[in-house]
Amino acid sequence: MSLTACSPSEIAQAASAVSRQLAALPVASRNDALTAIHSALRQHKDVVLEANARDVETAAEAVNNGQLSQSILKRLDLSRPGKYDEMLQGILDVRGLTDPLGKISLRTLLDEGLVLERVSCPIGVLLIIFEARPEVIANISALSIKSGNAAILKDFPNAAIQLVESRDVILPLLAQDKYIDLVVPRGSNELVRFIKANTKIPVLGHADGLCSIYLHSDADGEMAKKVILDAKINYPAACNAVETLLVDQSVLSTLLPPIAEALLEHGVSLRCDSESKAALMAALSPNQATLLQDATESDYDTEFLDLILAVKTISATPSSSSLDIAMSHINAHSSKHTDVILTSSREAAERFLVGVDSAGVYWNTSSRLADGMRYGFGTEVGISTNKIHSRGPVGLEGLTIYKYLIRGSGQTAGEFQGADGKQFKHEELPISDK
Amino acid sequence: MSLTACSPSEIAQAASAVSRQLAALPVASRNDALTAIHSALRQHKDVVLEANARDVETAAEAVNNGQLSQSILKRLDLSRPGKYDEMLQGILDVRGLTDPLGKISLRTLLDEGLVLERVSCPIGVLLIIFEARPEVIANISALSIKSGNAAILKDFPNAAIQLVESRDVILPLLAQDKYIDLVVPRGSNELVRFIKANTKIPVLGHADGLCSIYLHSDADGEMAKKVILDAKINYPAACNAVETLLVDQSVLSTLLPPIAEALLEHGVSLRCDSESKAALMAALSPNQATLLQDATESDYDTEFLDLILAVKTISATPSSSSLDIAMSHINAHSSKHTDVILTSSREAAERFLVGVDSAGVYWNTSSRLADGMRYGFGTEVGISTNKIHSRGPVGLEGLTIYKYLIRGSGQTAGEFQGADGKQFKHEELPISDK
Repeated sequence: MSLTACSPSEIAQAASAVSRQLAALPVASRNDALTAIHSALRQHKDVVLEANARDVETAAEAVNNGQLSQSILKRLDLSRPGKYDEMLQGILDVRGLTDPLGKISLRTLLDEGLVLERVSCPIGVLLIIFEARPEVIANISALSIKSGNAAILKDFPNAAIQLVESRDVILPLLAQDKYIDLVVPRGSNELVRFIKANTKIPVLGHADGLCSIYLHSDADGEMAKKVILDAKINYPAACNAVETLLVDQSVLSTLLPPIAEALLEHGVSLRCDSESKAALMAALSPNQATLLQDATESDYDTEFLDLILAVKTISATPSSSSLDIAMSHINAHSSKHTDVILTSSREAAERFLVGVDSAGVYWNTSSRLADGMRYGFGTEVGISTNKIHSRGPVGLEGLTIYKYLIRGSGQTAGEFQGADGKQFKHEELPISDK
Repeated sequence: MSLTACSPSEIAQAASAVSRQLAALPVASRNDALTAIHSALRQHKDVVLEANARDVETAAEAVNNGQLSQSILKRLDLSRPGKYDEMLQGILDVRGLTDPLGKISLRTLLDEGLVLERVSCPIGVLLIIFEARPEVIANISALSIKSGNAAILKDFPNAAIQLVESRDVILPLLAQDKYIDLVVPRGSNELVRFIKANTKIPVLGHADGLCSIYLHSDADGEMAKKVILDAKINYPAACNAVETLLVDQSVLSTLLPPIAEALLEHGVSLRCDSESKAALMAALSPNQATLLQDATESDYDTEFLDLILAVKTISATPSSSSLDIAMSHINAHSSKHTDVILTSSREAAERFLVGVDSAGVYWNTSSRLADGMRYGFGTEVGISTNKIHSRGPVGLEGLTIYKYLIRGSGQTAGEFQGADGKQFKHEELPISDK
């Protein structure tokens, strides 16, 4: 069905009507659709990559003119070794996943001949808005189809320069809260913030990925160096790269210098508070010491998406342990995406895991693990920092909801009321015998 | 802690800080708090009821002056037999529920010494806004405490007359989206609509409860009469009362007349389309026939909350069965709360259960069953018509979310990348051995 000539409200309304039919499609039909998409993308790989190369060329010019950021250019490029095949594999992974629909998560006998069931179903209509992420089209289409949702896909080529020009296109779609149930943005912080500010439809995703690592007094030095390096340099443009390093005061002169040395060697700019800077000035070679920068308060609220790391000293106070201070800093400054503690103390780690209010809280591993593929979800919808519905990497489950079904035999509410009324049985029934 | 002298932003920020501590409280402490609340309310029952009687008296005057609706007055009254004891029992029911926190719903071995867990946790800070529902304070406090959330309770005495005057009080709280994670309104449609229109915080609840019953051609007449009567007259002011009756054309002269007769006898006004009215005029006694009213289109979009029922004839077309027409009507007009089919045909029922996109879809039972107590959830937070997070009667689970924890031993993302990289194991681990 071609909807290009329709108004946003007609598109949304049509998607809403179609979504009821999709919801009733058997999983075999949904999987067949995924097979067809996979075959077509594999067959036309050369054509797609050629078109992508032209897009990358245009974008590279925009980067040179200062109209586009380097990180968007990186995301646009499908030619990075393995990226296209990963995209294809992602579709097959989704096809291979268990059907997320029709799953019964609760079955209760309310009375003889009166059974309550909670059964998973599609959310309905998704509005997917993406920017400079060509693989997202395959990604998100696969997930939408598998989960029986109708999806409206909207490309937003270069939010950085087009947000203002494109308001007329995007705002009418964002106003369709009667028909669209969920917006899934995939793009820059700027795009996500723009969307969140301009719609009453729930938005699944995150504007910022400000991840922190807390280097605890009991951390293992070698492990810490390895993990922090990975978290910073493995892919600095990613939302799960570390942006702030919190360092326990007691290890400023012991564990921190070799870590700082390695980071500087890999071209990372360190923006340090005065205490950590002083410690590093004393410990590093003069050549390296001159590279150290002074942090400003805003650096601890900044997602650099680049080879920059803010460093902050954590000191205990008479009333709070340094662990508590670190957790308070993270709960106040992080974007609730993914935060890490490096320590050999199980006790400190477990307190951190409970006390930090983020979608991912890790002990002794890199924040870069925050990813649907790495979690084993197959390809992901996105990473959510919302506090409701879905949190962290969102796979298929995040695109479903449930409804309550009751199959009765004429029961009324009245017959269960009053002193003489019947009692509900509320007997849990097995859910495996669907 | 008394916060009455604080600004809305200070209140929200304090609640946010406190929420981290609540999240770490063991369930025994949370249950002790519930015991204390229950004892105090039981001990001071007379005092509470006396105060409530004074409120009811004031409200009754407001009803007489046309400033307040009869249905709000009903909800305000705590003296209805059993209501106070139900409220007390609700607290004990919540206390008796399994701890919703710390529940592990996924545990995956990513690699040796690298384990991913998804564990339930509180959402954080709730803003509860209620109106003329004194039992909600006990209700919602119990649920918030049990689920480890910090709750800001805000009474909105008479929204009908105070919405405008109270904007100054409520809008600054609704603006605290940095600190407040979820708004739970309990009150009139007007209140909920006002809140939804004025906040970016997710709102859990429903503005409207426009429930429909579809009387299918294969319905059992006696059962249908019993269920429809219950759904309309058991508690007309409730959100789960039926407001629209869809009648298959083939039973206009057979099943409908005795049902209409019974409804009219119980004082229900029937607003009929021309076809159903004609059938009833022919079948009913002249006395009853004169009571029939003409429906307008807006009656099928109205939640009467009173002894009024809109009646609409459903006829097949050359391209659609009457079942399809009924489902389309419901999907377009109902508020996605609870909708019912009355039929002896299992096939028709199962198609209806899949095809109607509402929080509750019932076969051969009353819409009035849509209620957390009746579902066996203990006391309920509210009934949600949202398409994400929680749908239908919301119990404790709706006040929780989850986070992902990883316990590692120094793993990096880099070591799993490239052709020579390690492979993730993605091995499902048992979750019962916490």
